[in-house]
Amino acid sequence: MLPKEENQLLTRTGPGTPMGQLMRCYWLPALLSEEIPSPDCPPVQVRLLGQELVAFRNTEGRVGLLDERCSHRGTSLFYGRNEECGLRCIYHGWKYDVDGNVLDTPAEPYNSTLKDKVHHPAYPTREVAGVVFAYLGPKDKIPLFPKYEWTLLPKDQVYVSKVFQECNYLQGVEGECDSAHLSYLHRAFTKASTTGGDPNLYRQDGAPSVQPVPMDFGLRMISLRDGGDGTGYLRVSNFVMPNQGFVPTGGIKGNKEGYSIHTYVPVDDTHVWRYMISFRRNRAIREDERIYQKEIGPGYRKIRNLQNHFLQDREQQRKETFIGIGTNFMVHDACATESMGPIFDRSRETLGKSDTAVIAMRRYLLKAVKNLQDGKEPPHIVTDPQKNDFRHIVCLAHILEAKTSPEGYIEEYISQGPQAA
Amino acid sequence: MLPKEENQLLTRTGPGTPMGQLMRCYWLPALLSEEIPSPDCPPVQVRLLGQELVAFRNTEGRVGLLDERCSHRGTSLFYGRNEECGLRCIYHGWKYDVDGNVLDTPAEPYNSTLKDKVHHPAYPTREVAGVVFAYLGPKDKIPLFPKYEWTLLPKDQVYVSKVFQECNYLQGVEGECDSAHLSYLHRAFTKASTTGGDPNLYRQDGAPSVQPVPMDFGLRMISLRDGGDGTGYLRVSNFVMPNQGFVPTGGIKGNKEGYSIHTYVPVDDTHVWRYMISFRRNRAIREDERIYQKEIGPGYRKIRNLQNHFLQDREQQRKETFIGIGTNFMVHDACATESMGPIFDRSRETLGKSDTAVIAMRRYLLKAVKNLQDGKEPPHIVTDPQKNDFRHIVCLAHILEAKTSPEGYIEEYISQGPQAA
Amino acid sequence: MLPKEENQLLTRTGPGTPMGQLMRCYWLPALLSEEIPSPDCPPVQVRLLGQELVAFRNTEGRVGLLDERCSHRGTSLFYGRNEECGLRCIYHGWKYDVDGNVLDTPAEPYNSTLKDKVHHPAYPTREVAGVVFAYLGPKDKIPLFPKYEWTLLPKDQVYVSKVFQECNYLQGVEGECDSAHLSYLHRAFTKASTTGGDPNLYRQDGAPSVQPVPMDFGLRMISLRDGGDGTGYLRVSNFVMPNQGFVPTGGIKGNKEGYSIHTYVPVDDTHVWRYMISFRRNRAIREDERIYQKEIGPGYRKIRNLQNHFLQDREQQRKETFIGIGTNFMVHDACATESMGPIFDRSRETLGKSDTAVIAMRRYLLKAVKNLQDGKEPPHIVTDPQKNDFRHIVCLAHILEAKTSPEGYIEEYISQGPQAA
Repeated sequence: MLPKEENQLLTRTGPGTPMGQLMRCYWLPALLSEEIPSPDCPPVQVRLLGQELVAFRNTEGRVGLLDERCSHRGTSLFYGRNEECGLRCIYHGWKYDVDGNVLDTPAEPYNSTLKDKVHHPAYPTREVAGVVFAYLGPKDKIPLFPKYEWTLLPKDQVYVSKVFQECNYLQGVEGECDSAHLSYLHRAFTKASTTGGDPNLYRQDGAPSVQPVPMDFGLRMISLRDGGDGTGYLRVSNFVMPNQGFVPTGGIKGNKEGYSIHTYVPVDDTHVWRYMISFRRNRAIREDERIYQKEIGPGYRKIRNLQNHFLQDREQQRKETFIGIGTNFMVHDACATESMGPIFDRSRETLGKSDTAVIAMRRYLLKAVKNLQDGKEPPHIVTDPQKNDFRHIVCLAHILEAKTSPEGYIEEYISQGPQAA
Repeated sequence: MLPKEENQLLTRTGPGTPMGQLMRCYWLPALLSEEIPSPDCPPVQVRLLGQELVAFRNTEGRVGLLDERCSHRGTSLFYGRNEECGLRCIYHGWKYDVDGNVLDTPAEPYNSTLKDKVHHPAYPTREVAGVVFAYLGPKDKIPLFPKYEWTLLPKDQVYVSKVFQECNYLQGVEGECDSAHLSYLHRAFTKASTTGGDPNLYRQDGAPSVQPVPMDFGLRMISLRDGGDGTGYLRVSNFVMPNQGFVPTGGIKGNKEGYSIHTYVPVDDTHVWRYMISFRRNRAIREDERIYQKEIGPGYRKIRNLQNHFLQDREQQRKETFIGIGTNFMVHDACATESMGPIFDRSRETLGKSDTAVIAMRRYLLKAVKNLQDGKEPPHIVTDPQKNDFRHIVCLAHILEAKTSPEGYIEEYISQGPQAA
Repeated sequence: MLPKEENQLLTRTGPGTPMGQLMRCYWLPALLSEEIPSPDCPPVQVRLLGQELVAFRNTEGRVGLLDERCSHRGTSLFYGRNEECGLRCIYHGWKYDVDGNVLDTPAEPYNSTLKDKVHHPAYPTREVAGVVFAYLGPKDKIPLFPKYEWTLLPKDQVYVSKVFQECNYLQGVEGECDSAHLSYLHRAFTKASTTGGDPNLYRQDGAPSVQPVPMDFGLRMISLRDGGDGTGYLRVSNFVMPNQGFVPTGGIKGNKEGYSIHTYVPVDDTHVWRYMISFRRNRAIREDERIYQKEIGPGYRKIRNLQNHFLQDREQQRKETFIGIGTNFMVHDACATESMGPIFDRSRETLGKSDTAVIAMRRYLLKAVKNLQDGKEPPHIVTDPQKNDFRHIVCLAHILEAKTSPEGYIEEYISQGPQAA
């Protein structure tokens, strides 16, 4: 149960809101590189944290992210001419560079200095492995770009995708802090309908113990299922500030090769982009690992969606899968979270033991919001190059021998590195 | 003319509103049995008085009506697994019975008592002749289910249907208290376009006298048209609390065989379900009496609707019918009431003699609302089994001999019963 | 930059708003004659300044414009029977004439005087050259219908059209006060993609001097482009109260034959009808001059619109036209103004020299609104038949010889008349 005021505080991210200010302290995924594939290609509209923006790639390949409406009289720059290192408004030809400088105001007298007095709102971007990140906060507070493991790999070892969801971002983040739902939402009854790991391990024990450990980056979340013979099924996943889940994928066998990141970027308070990033440390992504394409249609909209009830098949639900909505975990998550409504009223919920990490994540966020309001720097803002290292964000799926402690195993894994493990 | 405050009072029915509280004192149609035809079939979403609910039929055939969102973390139970006498949420497997008891919280530790502390909002239901009724009020005030004549008949003697309308419920109820409109809205100019009674009787006198008589159940409404030769065309219909019209159908010949009930159940304040129930006392409904099927499409939406201007045919309007929108009275009513707008502002109306019963009905409702606010029990709440008898709600269409008084004839009809009459 | 309060003041036009009151002082285009082509034809719904109305042509050919909802109980008169010089409501047969008199209330007793006590809101109309104008203000203040040049011509010399736009009316009016945008928004790069005038003249000098001259009717706007050889490209257009642009069309050659009027009538505050009227003084409109037909689909909606991004073609934008959205100026204008959003927040704009006339127009309007609030009559309300003459509203596109003053040329043009010039 979250009081209405705290629910309001956590779920509102528009300009000027406390949670919006917190989100704007971090680099956030803004769009995929493929949306603006080449220099001087057509711009695209981007809606982020309730702001209307336009992204374009200039002649040199640099990405600009500008307020959508022209500083002159407000015409959308989306229709603009992307030419010669700048975006030019169709109405009177005002031209902007990626930094928001006004390069030209051709309808003004030739000696006009107007353009030197105007600065158009523009946001710094960073392009990594096919994702364009942006920083929407105050310019003097811009942090370093965090060197997550996947950001250091060649592009072909990283698979990136995104999908539109029709609910508040927090409903998505909560799903990342919720190990128990693996045993239900994603459960398959038959071999054929099984994907995404080792279902028997989830089935054995549907009530895992969940232990959230506060870290400098957010939460390390340790879940343990009873294997029945003294062994335990250990999963380690992470909530990474302010809106990311770092989760093991590939099951017992595959999970040492890499892991997945799910990031929930508010479009506005009732819509969210879910970015999905998977990587393999030592090899290229295989074609069969690109699992989202067939679920995602034009505009990165889900083919199975809230309007068509996710094409739920009640016969399949009876015989093959718990949910009856295919086998793609992303779609399952969307059904569970979108069907809560646009912004779930958490004053009506009933939390249990299985929600321990969800509770911890909300507290972590609330504390960060309140600290920021008090002028204290939020966690996981990278400013020291020496500390721009995140190898301690580990993701694990592992059968723990009898009597091995999860903490011990995690420490060993970190010290030896995933390859050795 | 209704002052804005009274209009507001009568038209708002959401949780916590005075009129909403009044409505919640009664059994209301919630869905048709055919929407959940068999044990363990897929659940359906139900929106009632602004509340989002889910209905399901359990393994034993009992109907449950639950708040749509899971008590745990709010996922929609519409996607739930309907199995073994309970509805199970897809997210973490919480399972509910038709009474809102939590049967299982499998993601909680095996010795958890959480489920015993939670009670999910559930509403009592009663299934009669193909209609599922629900009671949404306080549990300690639940009334008896009223033994209307049609509820005592075999199912094949009752024809039930429903249709979605895009306006406030009160606009529908007013149409039931409005005998005069028969002579206009439903008028046919040719034999071929005539249905629903004896049009010549409406045409003869388009300005009936209307007399509303306050009764324990609502209003008995007596309308009399001058037959021209000393005779009179008598119609008796009824406003039955809180949202029903009981009206004669079948014309002079047919009306003694049974009558029709039109009930307006708010979906929310700008949408309403119109339930239509007709019955024949001594025989099965004939196929040609099932007159709504061809007018109603998927989702119980009208094929002729506000968006397509009810497919009005101006040529037909010129030559065949007053309205030019086919011959189905239900569609005519919808056009007249939906085209008033989502919630009609009654401070702009001009009432006449022909609106006498409309005025009386609003006063009856306003008094009931105010009494309820003062802690007095509203009318037509059945609590005494001895008084659960409604044979005095009579519907009549009759040619009155010269000099016969309507009141006298009605009394005689009640004492002798429709068969004799 | 317009402060939020003044932006609010200028853009809100519903009943009771100051700008709405100002608009209601003038005759405004309400619909095209072709929408109600013949006596007793079907009525049409008309939404104007946030009011819901119905227009019909009676048996004698007169046009009525009534509040849409019946004075009785609010049913839409759009479904009404248009017969025998009146519009009759389908619900209870109340009948109205074009002046709002109630001719019949047939459901009332035969001796009822109710109809004499009711007056239905009706608005005076005037039909000119295929446009139906209406006056929505107080009856005792009704002005003369202004004798603009085009209103005095035979119908075949006038081309009228209208189109729906998805933004506030003021964004449209501003485009009429903005000579500079011709050089950008409407620019063509190739001969084939050139329409609407003499593009070279716009291209030569993209930063015209703009001089707004306050007049009794609004503003005369004089723009001058440097021809490079001592000559100047002079354009004279006009803002005519309260929502009209009178602009030269046809280029240097054609502009003396007539001009165009663009009138922006609010549907509500986020939608507007743009009426387009062109005329030729001495000849019929040619078929090839009817340039809007192929851009306008059912319901007068644009085929290229905000939803489909005006079917912008980025290849065309690169090679043929500045905007990449065909060659029709009306569509270009729509893209520039609709893409500002439903109601542009002018506190975010940056105005330059090129916006001189836009600024002057807003000031003119603001002053008129404030004067009206102070009880002073707004400009361009015609009450004196002697002064119902607007030959001084001239539209010009002309190459000015070296050293000729624009003012001198305009005076000469007015005194000699367009024919001589």
